[in-house]
Amino acid sequence: MVNGIERPLDLLNQSKGKEILVNLENGSQVVGKLLAFDIHINIVLDNTKELEKGEIKRNIGLAFIRGNTITYISPAPATS
Amino acid sequence: MVNGIERPLDLLNQSKGKEILVNLENGSQVVGKLLAFDIHINIVLDNTKELEKGEIKRNIGLAFIRGNTITYISPAPATS
Amino acid sequence: MVNGIERPLDLLNQSKGKEILVNLENGSQVVGKLLAFDIHINIVLDNTKELEKGEIKRNIGLAFIRGNTITYISPAPATS
Amino acid sequence: MVNGIERPLDLLNQSKGKEILVNLENGSQVVGKLLAFDIHINIVLDNTKELEKGEIKRNIGLAFIRGNTITYISPAPATS
Amino acid sequence: MVNGIERPLDLLNQSKGKEILVNLENGSQVVGKLLAFDIHINIVLDNTKELEKGEIKRNIGLAFIRGNTITYISPAPATS
Amino acid sequence: MVNGIERPLDLLNQSKGKEILVNLENGSQVVGKLLAFDIHINIVLDNTKELEKGEIKRNIGLAFIRGNTITYISPAPATS
Amino acid sequence: MVNGIERPLDLLNQSKGKEILVNLENGSQVVGKLLAFDIHINIVLDNTKELEKGEIKRNIGLAFIRGNTITYISPAPATS
Repeated sequence: MVNGIERPLDLLNQSKGKEILVNLENGSQVVGKLLAFDIHINIVLDNTKELEKGEIKRNIGLAFIRGNTITYISPAPATS
Repeated sequence: MVNGIERPLDLLNQSKGKEILVNLENGSQVVGKLLAFDIHINIVLDNTKELEKGEIKRNIGLAFIRGNTITYISPAPATS
Repeated sequence: MVNGIERPLDLLNQSKGKEILVNLENGSQVVGKLLAFDIHINIVLDNTKELEKGEIKRNIGLAFIRGNTITYISPAPATS
Repeated sequence: MVNGIERPLDLLNQSKGKEILVNLENGSQVVGKLLAFDIHINIVLDNTKELEKGEIKRNIGLAFIRGNTITYISPAPATS
Repeated sequence: MVNGIERPLDLLNQSKGKEILVNLENGSQVVGKLLAFDIHINIVLDNTKELEKGEIKRNIGLAFIRGNTITYISPAPATS
Repeated sequence: MVNGIERPLDLLNQSKGKEILVNLENGSQVVGKLLAFDIHINIVLDNTKELEKGEIKRNIGLAFIRGNTITYISPAPATS
Repeated sequence: MVNGIERPLDLLNQSKGKEILVNLENGSQVVGKLLAFDIHINIVLDNTKELEKGEIKRNIGLAFIRGNTITYISPAPATS
């Protein structure tokens, strides 16, 4: 499961095309399919949804998230 | 729909000339047509509007937004 | 109206000698004539006025504003 | 026990494959097995759990934690 | 009055030896004679006074002010 | 007592292997034996203890503390 | 009195071996004899005392203060 993660960005690389959960510094959460990221941890998600207490609050679609506002990122649990 | 997004800035590049929704660190939102951006995510919008709870609060016109104050950016839903 | 804006700083360049409205991170606003700016978005305004809820609160005259404290900048609406 | 720690990152290096406790700037804590880190103190944990007052609040699985949000890190006490 | 200000630091240069009003991020204000500054906007004032609601609260004398804590600077109105 | 301190990091160098008291930006304090530090003021402590109002609140053992979260550091008073 | 201050760090240089008052971003103050500083405004004080409303609250002895937490520094008024 954790094969091939030698550097932190390897996890993001493995997550491309998959759903991830992004926690922001202001306490909110967004979930979406990871399309792209860079070394500043700027990321682009597709089919992005804002969550509130685990519930979907708003559909955003495509989103560019600035790396500086991110606390942590994890592969999203299956939600379908 | 997500063709051609390999790096985060590709989404901003594709959004040039289109309406985007910009979420700021202080919790406010602005919407406007993306005219220009740079690698610091400084952006210029035209026909900018400040939103409050999804409603237009104020028309600003042209606006330069400093990248450091931005949380995330998404293509704006059609509003016309 | 938006001719010639290819990079974010182009808007500031076009605004030299004109009134701009500067929104600061602490929520306050200042308005004044843009005399100079640099790549850190440090700016100098002439005939600067602090605003509170859109009303002039204080005349400051010349002012040096540190870029790091700026949220966004827009050409000021005509006030005369 | 403290052999071989000459530079701060040596402690993280020794902790690879072991459980660590990560304290975040927002006051929350996560615990997990350290898989990778870089010089920005970005880290990847496996089997990550969010803690609240020392109790497990949520299982996250794999997690990428941005270094800028970390206060301090310590080897986790045995919890089994 | 605004002759010779082509870059933001020109205003600080013109203010050397004169009284300036410095607004800090924590909301407080200090006034004093500008002796020196650098590109980080670190400044040294002489005959520095802390203000509270425009009134002198405390005499500080010489002061080194770290640029990162400054919001904006303006030439002080004549106070004698 | 203060011989040999010509640069700030000299104090940290002299404190290696000794107890230091570390004050963090969130207002908390930790005390422990300084094992290592770098130019970012990232530090590793051994036998680390979290303090609350001067009392030991929790034993942490080894700890990596990110420099950016530190306010000030002082040699700890003898506590045995 | 202000001879020889051409750059901000000159004031710190002149203050070596003398008492200075350091104001921190969290609103607290420390006073002590300046032993060393660097270009990040990291400083080391000897015979450091924490102040509260101008009164000595705690004796700290030697202290390393991280530059990023400093608001301003001034030569301390004679206190003996």
